[in-house]
Amino acid sequence: MTDLEQQLAFIIEIDKLKAVYRQTTVKEDKDRYENSAEHSWHITLTAQLLQDYAEQPVDISRVVKMLLIHDIIEIDAGDLFAFAASQDHEQQALKEEKAAQRLFGLLPAAQHEHYKALWFEFEEAKTNDAQFAKAMDRILPLVQNMNNQGGSWAKHKISQSQVLERNKYLEFMAPKLWQYVLEQTNTAVAKGWLL
Amino acid sequence: MTDLEQQLAFIIEIDKLKAVYRQTTVKEDKDRYENSAEHSWHITLTAQLLQDYAEQPVDISRVVKMLLIHDIIEIDAGDLFAFAASQDHEQQALKEEKAAQRLFGLLPAAQHEHYKALWFEFEEAKTNDAQFAKAMDRILPLVQNMNNQGGSWAKHKISQSQVLERNKYLEFMAPKLWQYVLEQTNTAVAKGWLL
Ligand SMILES: [Ca+2]
Repeated sequence: MTDLEQQLAFIIEIDKLKAVYRQTTVKEDKDRYENSAEHSWHITLTAQLLQDYAEQPVDISRVVKMLLIHDIIEIDAGDLFAFAASQDHEQQALKEEKAAQRLFGLLPAAQHEHYKALWFEFEEAKTNDAQFAKAMDRILPLVQNMNNQGGSWAKHKISQSQVLERNKYLEFMAPKLWQYVLEQTNTAVAKGWLL
Repeated sequence: MTDLEQQLAFIIEIDKLKAVYRQTTVKEDKDRYENSAEHSWHITLTAQLLQDYAEQPVDISRVVKMLLIHDIIEIDAGDLFAFAASQDHEQQALKEEKAAQRLFGLLPAAQHEHYKALWFEFEEAKTNDAQFAKAMDRILPLVQNMNNQGGSWAKHKISQSQVLERNKYLEFMAPKLWQYVLEQTNTAVAKGWLL
């Protein structure tokens, strides 16, 4: 296979991310479940728009690239609800590593290594770029749930401390957004959308 | 409103792009229609992956930003099928300008101007970055239709010359991809997927 044939095989394969559904819903579209492809678009653009809130040095073009590919492994591994039990998260991590190997493995060697490394960096969440990307991935469902009467939080009886734990990267990376998350989750508790 | 409130209002508003449907379908998801949000993700990543085929200087981070926002105007203006009549395209252009004004106008002033200018640049298609972005927006439906027995081409009885006309930016921007388009559309004619 030529490089182009490999790249096109990958581009066709990732069409399947449009069939992976998440717990959040699209209010404007009869409240149907959101899929991971449209979610990937939404948070990539969110990161672009909110980049100036990063109070640590961040390379936004790497953050964008990470967010574009961060969910591709769900094509094989499926989406696990953020607040699932921790043993489920461990099992999921193994499935996702296999998925990264197979899916990025469709690309020519140099791109395979590049994108797989970028995905691992995102998962490990040790670099500023990865932490900012994770922070965006976690603040957006909050914005969506607050706009949808608690959305997936209310349905699954999630607590404020669970949401704060998931958004903790913001405290260091983007304190103004962390402040916003504190305020919003207080409001959600008052409204009965969060325990 | 603070800048953050304006940015979040925009981020919530653009959720609606997930409810704008196009002519292409998602084979893997019971062949349902594709929406413009997931399409935006798919072509942004496609542009990242195929950037090395650009034989003119291109700033990929600008291309990516353009592609992330290129369809947002469809929230107000709707998606017009690529091969609609030219008077429909003229009417559509007016609707899209109004939409750009309203939608990007939700953002703080500096971002409003920045993103509106970027969208106009994409529409005008005079710069290399815009031409490469347009080329990506046009080659991806070809890849999808070729993978789906002609897809929207077959349904609407589209001709090879119409597809080549739409993909013409590739001839100068990315000759290897243009070569690919020529071959693929020949195959499509032979299979009866294109007139
Ligand atoms: Ca379009």
